[in-house]
Amino acid sequence: MSKERRKIGVVAPASRMSPEVATRVPALAERLYTERPPEIVFHPQCFAAHGHFAGDDKTRAQAFLDIANDASFDAVWVARGGYGSCRVAESIMCGLTEASKQKAYVGYSDAGMLLAALYRAGFTGVAHGPVAHDILRDGGDAAVARALAWMIDRAPEALEPTVDGVKRTAAFNITVLSHLLGTPLEPDLAGHVLMLEEVSEAMYRIDRSLFHITASANVRSVSGIMLGRCGNITPNEPDFGMNEEEIAQFWCHKAGIPWLGRADIGHDADNKIVPFGAWRPSA
Amino acid sequence: MSKERRKIGVVAPASRMSPEVATRVPALAERLYTERPPEIVFHPQCFAAHGHFAGDDKTRAQAFLDIANDASFDAVWVARGGYGSCRVAESIMCGLTEASKQKAYVGYSDAGMLLAALYRAGFTGVAHGPVAHDILRDGGDAAVARALAWMIDRAPEALEPTVDGVKRTAAFNITVLSHLLGTPLEPDLAGHVLMLEEVSEAMYRIDRSLFHITASANVRSVSGIMLGRCGNITPNEPDFGMNEEEIAQFWCHKAGIPWLGRADIGHDADNKIVPFGAWRPSA
Repeated sequence: MSKERRKIGVVAPASRMSPEVATRVPALAERLYTERPPEIVFHPQCFAAHGHFAGDDKTRAQAFLDIANDASFDAVWVARGGYGSCRVAESIMCGLTEASKQKAYVGYSDAGMLLAALYRAGFTGVAHGPVAHDILRDGGDAAVARALAWMIDRAPEALEPTVDGVKRTAAFNITVLSHLLGTPLEPDLAGHVLMLEEVSEAMYRIDRSLFHITASANVRSVSGIMLGRCGNITPNEPDFGMNEEEIAQFWCHKAGIPWLGRADIGHDADNKIVPFGAWRPSA
Repeated sequence: MSKERRKIGVVAPASRMSPEVATRVPALAERLYTERPPEIVFHPQCFAAHGHFAGDDKTRAQAFLDIANDASFDAVWVARGGYGSCRVAESIMCGLTEASKQKAYVGYSDAGMLLAALYRAGFTGVAHGPVAHDILRDGGDAAVARALAWMIDRAPEALEPTVDGVKRTAAFNITVLSHLLGTPLEPDLAGHVLMLEEVSEAMYRIDRSLFHITASANVRSVSGIMLGRCGNITPNEPDFGMNEEEIAQFWCHKAGIPWLGRADIGHDADNKIVPFGAWRPSA
């Protein structure tokens, strides 16, 4: 366990963050870490608004770089998902400097676009895990506490239970992965356990996305697929006839990808940490 | 204009067809072609049901092959879109015989998965155009009449107005194209005018799909993109801040793809015919 006081920077590369998050998250952190509360800095960009987004593309990219390239920060924490990271990922990747390389990067959902690009570029501290905005969920304190435990102490209990420090892992929202395949953001997934989750999509859309994902030669090179939770599935008219697990098994079978069962990730308060690559317990 | 009586086979590779279509479409055809009404055969599979689909994958694939491989048919007409063609496209492509090659193939939306695969395989009669089910739309008789005019007479007035028989063209639903990129269905689009349309998606989804599509090296080799209608756009909370044309122009500009303006296609009764490849007026 680190004795140092960690410094975490929060940025919003996609949708706008609720201002309430900026008071509730630090308050929780102070309750959890009374002797060494982390310094949590919400970049002013988190409160910006530009149409759908937390500021325009340039503002969001610059905010990410402000934190990532500042050597005083230990972690870059994504404020929330929504939509917008794909619009800034390439300019962020072009602007990163040496100081960005050793940090933790934590987020999920839309932020998978950035996690993918960072991992592709060789960053070793990339992880799929709760965002600051998750504090607004029912039971969301647990999600945020888990992200903090990872960013502050690399606490093994924050990890998805099958992550063992040996197998390489990666995790994505299904729709986000489908939309980054074939783009400059796509990382090499060969030999990885690929964990997938979804939220607020109809069953036919999950099926279509998994057709697309499992047709990829890169995805066919994974060591296997695990399915996280598919939450808030929207109605399928008529009933689709298969559930999400049957769908995932169907496409894995068709593509010759080993089916490895369920993963403990999803758009919920129980969402566990999945490092990109092989997690190595710190010395 | 052909004096022969054409034979058109209707199959449903995706969602179920309303039985009403099988009475209304032939009645319209008899009114339109009193002296040489086409023989329109609805494969019994059109009326099958299996969960989301018009029969299970095997049934749908076999029905398509029954029509495509039967030399007595001049055209294979897709009954409707919905979802499901990607599940049967590969087995259809493996089962096609010589008799399938000279036919017209007409459909759009989800059927784009099949049109793509057929065009990739060198079929010259592939066209994006109305499905039989379009007769149920307001003004749908015009859409169906247009598809019939194309299948029966290759009538130039059925064509999207910029199709000139010289430029190679291709047309897709945006979401469908996004989900076939990188799969064995993806055709070579180099040098083509690519027309895109969408229906029932939120603006942020259109933006995300166009990020994905315009990042493709294959799509970057097109001669330009034209945007059809984006109908029934679902609410974006908050307002996205750009309309569909601004979004398409944005991604074309970013990707270095010429923006060629609007196309006369969409999920509506005005949907015009877009041949895949260079349409040659018949001798």
